[in-house]
Amino acid sequence: MPKPEKQHRTVFFVSDRTGITAETLGHSMMTQFDGVEFSYTRLPFLDTAEKMAEAVQRINAVMDDDGMKPIVFSTLVNTELLDQIRRDCKGVVLDFFDAFNAPLEAELGIKASHVMGRSHGMGNFANYTARIEALNFALNNDDGVTTRNYSAADIILIGVSRSGKTPTSLFLALQFGIHAANYPLTEEDLQVRALPEVLRPFRDKLFGLTIDPDRLQQIRSERRPNSRYANSSQCQLEVDAVESLYRKEGIRFLNTTHMSIEEISTTILQTAGLKRRLVS
Amino acid sequence: MPKPEKQHRTVFFVSDRTGITAETLGHSMMTQFDGVEFSYTRLPFLDTAEKMAEAVQRINAVMDDDGMKPIVFSTLVNTELLDQIRRDCKGVVLDFFDAFNAPLEAELGIKASHVMGRSHGMGNFANYTARIEALNFALNNDDGVTTRNYSAADIILIGVSRSGKTPTSLFLALQFGIHAANYPLTEEDLQVRALPEVLRPFRDKLFGLTIDPDRLQQIRSERRPNSRYANSSQCQLEVDAVESLYRKEGIRFLNTTHMSIEEISTTILQTAGLKRRLVS
Repeated sequence: MPKPEKQHRTVFFVSDRTGITAETLGHSMMTQFDGVEFSYTRLPFLDTAEKMAEAVQRINAVMDDDGMKPIVFSTLVNTELLDQIRRDCKGVVLDFFDAFNAPLEAELGIKASHVMGRSHGMGNFANYTARIEALNFALNNDDGVTTRNYSAADIILIGVSRSGKTPTSLFLALQFGIHAANYPLTEEDLQVRALPEVLRPFRDKLFGLTIDPDRLQQIRSERRPNSRYANSSQCQLEVDAVESLYRKEGIRFLNTTHMSIEEISTTILQTAGLKRRLVS
Repeated sequence: MPKPEKQHRTVFFVSDRTGITAETLGHSMMTQFDGVEFSYTRLPFLDTAEKMAEAVQRINAVMDDDGMKPIVFSTLVNTELLDQIRRDCKGVVLDFFDAFNAPLEAELGIKASHVMGRSHGMGNFANYTARIEALNFALNNDDGVTTRNYSAADIILIGVSRSGKTPTSLFLALQFGIHAANYPLTEEDLQVRALPEVLRPFRDKLFGLTIDPDRLQQIRSERRPNSRYANSSQCQLEVDAVESLYRKEGIRFLNTTHMSIEEISTTILQTAGLKRRLVS
């Protein structure tokens, strides 16, 4: 029996800013509709009537081609631009800001300014600086290159090579302004069956990462195929040793195998009770 | 005349996942209400009735303290959890998914599965790998440490020290899976008034960053106060030289002074017509 042809829809993310949030949220929503194949286009920085008119033309052209209404997720602060796309666009326009404007205005008893505040852009210099400082901290204290700044760290991630320490450190910096260092536990460290000396004064800041050996093997193989490093029994050995070290030393740890970088970072923030240095 | 006391409201971001998107979007909305002072709390991973009950209790306690309804932005995939918070919580519950469920189901002619697809988590291994690979590329090709991988780069950011190259490279990797290298144009490079030899074969991949001299001076001063590097005339000199080089060599460039990392990255993606390697 031939498979029924999948419905296809074009989805646009439209914004007078970057449109990254509209995209993330809209994309999450669409993954909940199984029977449809979507293609996605983000149209950022539509901040004039001219740019919006061009975008509308592009969206309407898709409608004419597909014969199906495109889905348009938007985050438009400027209500005139929202009115324009609502009026001229043949797609289904769903604006995340507009959805809650009325209940928020009613509850707060004031009108929205329709001018974006400090959440993006350079309005908040302190926030920007905190973010860059955190990123520099993560880069300068990556992979155990130096341990002399550990007293200034908010958290020190430890784990075997390729268990997710570096991406997590960088995301914690970019998203939350956290000063995260990370230190790789090598085979030699693990053979000692005790915390490396340099880490001992910072026990309270340590957070362990672990990962299923199969997955570790898969990741290491992409990096160095057929090496001892990527060998299945080597991965098993290191993971066993690191988890037993965490338990013995009473170090909090997290298995990252089935988690995204966002999920790992959020879990660490929550579990370790870290105070973020900026608001997203 | 004494200033009227500002209205204060507590805002919660509630999710059965990380809640990062709810927070970003909700925070953007709240910055549009000028007369109110908000405090923000994110409650992630509320994925059972028990966890939700605890969260509701916490939110309701704020209501009892403040005498004002808390604002609750949520992204709950699980409708039972959404029903629970709607029923038990004394705050104003605004769910971003729920807002558009009905029009989307009507337009697509199918029901939402209320199960999150590939947008986060490890459902999409290829996407995860692409992201980590891009991050490794950015780290290994940061700050001109090596130039031998430039043929594999999607883009090569150039600019004077502290013009935003590294954060942008990392964000391009994490958010879009772009392979971005970056190369610092030093004073010596700028004195030659021509592109450094190593960059010449990759002219099409070059993207220049620039920044207002005052702002550059401010950033450099935080790093090395009272240094020649952070000197006002030195910053002016370097910026003049780099912009004149961009113009002479016909290199696209962007002034990052008033832009967030998200805005810089989105602009580069758009201007350079880069094809992203992953969907957020």
